[in-house]
Amino acid sequence: MSMERESLIRALQSLVGKERVYTEGIIPAKRAIDTWPLPTVQIAVGAPEPPPPICVVRPRTTEEVSTIMSLLHRERIPVIPYGGGSNVCGGAKASTPDSVVIDLGSMNRILSLDKANLMVTVQAGLYQSQLEAWLNERGYISGHYPQSFDLAQVGGLVATRSAGQFSTKYGCIEDLVMGLEAVLPTGEVVRIKPAPRKSTGPDLRHIWLGSEGTFGVITEVTLKIFPKPAQRWLHAYAVPSMDVGLGIMQRFMQEGWRPAVARLRDAVETARSHKGVVQEGECILLLLSEGPAGYVKAESEALHQIVTEGGGRPLGPKPVEDWLEHRNDVQEFYQYTAMGVIVDTVEVAAGWDQIGAIYTEVVQRVRKEVPELVVIFAHSSHCYPQGTNLYFTFGAQPPRDPKAVERVYWSIWSRIMEITLTHGGTISHHHGVGKVRIPWIADELGSSLTLLRRLKQAMDPDGLMNPGTLLPGPDVKKPQT
Amino acid sequence: MSMERESLIRALQSLVGKERVYTEGIIPAKRAIDTWPLPTVQIAVGAPEPPPPICVVRPRTTEEVSTIMSLLHRERIPVIPYGGGSNVCGGAKASTPDSVVIDLGSMNRILSLDKANLMVTVQAGLYQSQLEAWLNERGYISGHYPQSFDLAQVGGLVATRSAGQFSTKYGCIEDLVMGLEAVLPTGEVVRIKPAPRKSTGPDLRHIWLGSEGTFGVITEVTLKIFPKPAQRWLHAYAVPSMDVGLGIMQRFMQEGWRPAVARLRDAVETARSHKGVVQEGECILLLLSEGPAGYVKAESEALHQIVTEGGGRPLGPKPVEDWLEHRNDVQEFYQYTAMGVIVDTVEVAAGWDQIGAIYTEVVQRVRKEVPELVVIFAHSSHCYPQGTNLYFTFGAQPPRDPKAVERVYWSIWSRIMEITLTHGGTISHHHGVGKVRIPWIADELGSSLTLLRRLKQAMDPDGLMNPGTLLPGPDVKKPQT
Repeated sequence: MSMERESLIRALQSLVGKERVYTEGIIPAKRAIDTWPLPTVQIAVGAPEPPPPICVVRPRTTEEVSTIMSLLHRERIPVIPYGGGSNVCGGAKASTPDSVVIDLGSMNRILSLDKANLMVTVQAGLYQSQLEAWLNERGYISGHYPQSFDLAQVGGLVATRSAGQFSTKYGCIEDLVMGLEAVLPTGEVVRIKPAPRKSTGPDLRHIWLGSEGTFGVITEVTLKIFPKPAQRWLHAYAVPSMDVGLGIMQRFMQEGWRPAVARLRDAVETARSHKGVVQEGECILLLLSEGPAGYVKAESEALHQIVTEGGGRPLGPKPVEDWLEHRNDVQEFYQYTAMGVIVDTVEVAAGWDQIGAIYTEVVQRVRKEVPELVVIFAHSSHCYPQGTNLYFTFGAQPPRDPKAVERVYWSIWSRIMEITLTHGGTISHHHGVGKVRIPWIADELGSSLTLLRRLKQAMDPDGLMNPGTLLPGPDVKKPQT
Repeated sequence: MSMERESLIRALQSLVGKERVYTEGIIPAKRAIDTWPLPTVQIAVGAPEPPPPICVVRPRTTEEVSTIMSLLHRERIPVIPYGGGSNVCGGAKASTPDSVVIDLGSMNRILSLDKANLMVTVQAGLYQSQLEAWLNERGYISGHYPQSFDLAQVGGLVATRSAGQFSTKYGCIEDLVMGLEAVLPTGEVVRIKPAPRKSTGPDLRHIWLGSEGTFGVITEVTLKIFPKPAQRWLHAYAVPSMDVGLGIMQRFMQEGWRPAVARLRDAVETARSHKGVVQEGECILLLLSEGPAGYVKAESEALHQIVTEGGGRPLGPKPVEDWLEHRNDVQEFYQYTAMGVIVDTVEVAAGWDQIGAIYTEVVQRVRKEVPELVVIFAHSSHCYPQGTNLYFTFGAQPPRDPKAVERVYWSIWSRIMEITLTHGGTISHHHGVGKVRIPWIADELGSSLTLLRRLKQAMDPDGLMNPGTLLPGPDVKKPQT
């Protein structure tokens, strides 16, 4: 840091106003971490709070982001772009307190609605739930409903390659982003214009989708929107096992159906969330089809036939309604972590021929090999003709000591990561790499790691953007467990 | 070139065998150009044939590509990756004879079929039509049918961001590529593994999709496949104008329907291709729906209703059958260009609110302002909820002189490019940039041009890969017309 701390803060204040530079109190303290459970649980059992960043800056416009970035670049200060802070992988957690957090929260305007072409353009700091509510009032939907819906901002969803609960029909975030604007570390503003489709070189949106704040700051996003669907059908089925349920989903996906929701919960998760609805040991499959009336009729009939032929027992719409109502409740999560109990989620994906084996091996081995485990269960909730994801949730009760928390934490994560890689799966479906997956990113990417490194070098040659996230440093080792 | 020509050829021969290094005759002569009409017509009216490259090398394996690339990199020799040679934009035309062409044509093996996950892995030099035939015998389809189907190789389709005639249902090439392997200029081999979906940083496949041979050589591709659809419905409709037809397509796309084919031909194209089927001045809309039986029934009923409500008059299936049978006939094209007549195609795309204006303005202005024009017509054939493409075909008869050919050629191209940009459209839907669109790429990309330049610098810092394609050099000017 070539500028003194105080003079840097004064320089930032002169750029955006004193009231938009936070140097003490709750805001810098909160922006020092995100929703990654590991540090949260460690703090709960006595680890020191991480030191706050130099300051948190809250720009209102792209021009302000640009002047901030260019000042910080000149002074070689690390920059952490910060959205809603709902990242559960440590992606927005500063790796050094000698950094400045750019908080996008004041850049939350809806800039334009393009009804003819079904697009909306927003500033990156808008909450996804606010966008959805605004669209709903006008007869549209966003089609993007991650569990972090109320907590996540649009720019963060782009930066982490988010997937929503209705992705099987509407696509994941990369299928929804039409154009965007971002600020490079030097302050240069780049805009990628929307087009229905183009062939003018590589699709430059993909530099930003999954960049996790390591290339620059996303300031504006143009997203697809959809008319409110005319019709909706919901139905739940009991299935005897995960393997049977996965086989059913594989069949309807490969035949060409695209239900908005196809969610298979294992027996443990089903028993917790749908008490008394199924028989012991059964899994539940939640289906939701929506769209034009004729489409929903055809799809629901086909799904019903495929599921019942495959061994599913109809349970009616109620379990799907229950899930819709409670799907984003995460209060329990915060209560447990505050008590020193590790509760975390790990999502991976693989082809249909491997996903069942990954599920079985993870659950069996974690249960057998991690004595501190309290519970582990999973669901599959994003389907493709080529495979699906698994979303594991686990709880573990380590001794009340930060080192023990870390040991237990990694002992579970390591197993899920290694088992997934062994079966040819991918270590993240939609949460991103952040800091938690850094130890396995080299194994994940293999020889293509050089492409990611070259991208980083091309976009941020000075290594100032969100250091320690996404890209492994030279000293990265796998946790010893 | 640091090595003498002869010793370079001997070194290449020692790497791959003498019989795989072509130094004279038809092969080097043919690999000096691709299917770009401009040089072809110029040659037809007396321009000299372009000099052949140093040699054409035909590797059989990725390892051979790697050793070739690493030799050429050491010697600083420009490299032109060459697939089927069907590019109509000059993308595979060497900008200097002091280059070596790597012809992928001998790397045409099908490596594996993954029935469980509906994927096939092939070497990049396989013809798309051969892949389709092989899949058909096994009950699958590729879903990718560009007009260059018989001429194009898989690697070239990836490198140019191809779109097929059934893209509205099956997606364009970026929706079909699951994984790939490529060789960097240094000879380093990178592999991107397939996954149903992942969130492990930026999607690295997109570095290669649209790279047009300027970053390295694509050697292997894993593609989605589809089961042969159970049902197919075809129907044609007469519509009174392009605007009415575009409005109809906008409506069914935005309501959520995805016919495999939705092809709207303007009155001139309709009169040429469907003689006697419609009344004078009418356009034809060709629709094809395929998939599971219940889906096709629902979609065809909805489409029929939307089209007839919108002013379409049913013509039965015959015009669609005729189109299916003759859709890839391009003999006429070769005959005309050999006679010194310019026949070329230009595809652009834009939002629904601008596409009709682009169509009208292009056709009116080119007819009025280019006296050498013989004919211009267009169709729209790749639909999205956000807009569609226009595919212009034009014929022009310049004086039999290479300079006059160039002047007339650019006078038409300039108008289409400028009108598209003025209306906020994109200058290429699926043919790519090549050399023909280089003068407008800076206007197309605007501030995001720096991202493309940074990518190039990251992937090919010595600028050896396919120089003169995709990226504008410092001396690029718009043609004076």
